[in-house]
Amino acid sequence: MDLNNPVTATYVIAAGIMILKLMGQGWITVYRMMKVGAGFRNPEDANKGLLNANPNPNQIEPNEYVERSRRMHLNDLENIPAFLVAGLLFSFTNPSLLLAQVLMYGFVAMRAMHFIAYSNAWSHEVRATFFTFGSLAIMFMAGYSIYYVF
Amino acid sequence: MDLNNPVTATYVIAAGIMILKLMGQGWITVYRMMKVGAGFRNPEDANKGLLNANPNPNQIEPNEYVERSRRMHLNDLENIPAFLVAGLLFSFTNPSLLLAQVLMYGFVAMRAMHFIAYSNAWSHEVRATFFTFGSLAIMFMAGYSIYYVF
Amino acid sequence: MDLNNPVTATYVIAAGIMILKLMGQGWITVYRMMKVGAGFRNPEDANKGLLNANPNPNQIEPNEYVERSRRMHLNDLENIPAFLVAGLLFSFTNPSLLLAQVLMYGFVAMRAMHFIAYSNAWSHEVRATFFTFGSLAIMFMAGYSIYYVF
Repeated sequence: MDLNNPVTATYVIAAGIMILKLMGQGWITVYRMMKVGAGFRNPEDANKGLLNANPNPNQIEPNEYVERSRRMHLNDLENIPAFLVAGLLFSFTNPSLLLAQVLMYGFVAMRAMHFIAYSNAWSHEVRATFFTFGSLAIMFMAGYSIYYVF
Repeated sequence: MDLNNPVTATYVIAAGIMILKLMGQGWITVYRMMKVGAGFRNPEDANKGLLNANPNPNQIEPNEYVERSRRMHLNDLENIPAFLVAGLLFSFTNPSLLLAQVLMYGFVAMRAMHFIAYSNAWSHEVRATFFTFGSLAIMFMAGYSIYYVF
Repeated sequence: MDLNNPVTATYVIAAGIMILKLMGQGWITVYRMMKVGAGFRNPEDANKGLLNANPNPNQIEPNEYVERSRRMHLNDLENIPAFLVAGLLFSFTNPSLLLAQVLMYGFVAMRAMHFIAYSNAWSHEVRATFFTFGSLAIMFMAGYSIYYVF
């Protein structure tokens, strides 16, 4: 992997941003749990402690504000790891820099828009559109990598 | 990564197919949700819109036809990303082409059979058998990569 | 990828261990389901068969002993694939061996402690501490890789 190659550099930047986004979604879930003092998942999390000054058995029931962040996290898991590997494979197929930038930065932009649409509970149609373009970018890179080998 | 190396080429083909399969499972979930007009997960998805001509509050309740696809998707997430990286590491351990093909194309075949068994609700025993061989292929490649470094 | 490079070797060892851990958590879920004969997820899993001598419709209801392993598995999915790629990118940024070892073996150690804390239902505070250091290691490696490219 030659980081002086502009396609590889594009990949590393896009991949790094998406890893930070994926980890950040976990922290958003933590932030939301702490803010509302609810939406915990483990029985022991409803015990009194530094993170839980006012314990309450209802704290381990689902809380929509927290669950939304968990659904966003699962959606990230369904897309970002596949992107990370598809982009790596694609970066070895000697693509044009422009195409690599469109696909990789395009994916990052689509996931940023998907995040905004999902956080704000925008319509299913809008959220699905951003998901679709991101998904197509991953599938194109994976499919092209197979094609390139033949 | 030298795509002229036949082991690397084997890896890229197997990895590309598995990425397409992983993304495809998301699209199968979408197809099933649209077909039955149910099994949505977000409150806003039960609003009227282009994707939802006949809105109904029951649409966000779990629907077994859709949930099955989500369980298959989660099972993919539990196996495919680990394969993608285990295969990459293994491809750098200078394995014989035959062994690489058996492990990597064998994994792809096991996941294809697992998909068929899971989609059609075949017995737990049959589904578990396909899962087991796929899981063993990943663990062998990861374990061998550690061994090779020492 | 040059496995004689000590940073790369460190990465391969840490990545291989984490892949084995991730796959192992799936097997722990299987072990727990078989031990208690409960916590299955699919209707067909409650049928009589080699894996299920005493079928019972309640077997597909959530079982806390099994669900804990599933939550641990999901937590792995939220962290390990991101580590596998962040570590790969970082290993190409020419880091000092000591820093690579601290971050990568540190991540492995934090996940091992997280596993123990989660299995034994230790306090949320203790479990969260191990998660935090592991998460910071991933985010540092991803962020440093972006920085290095510029």
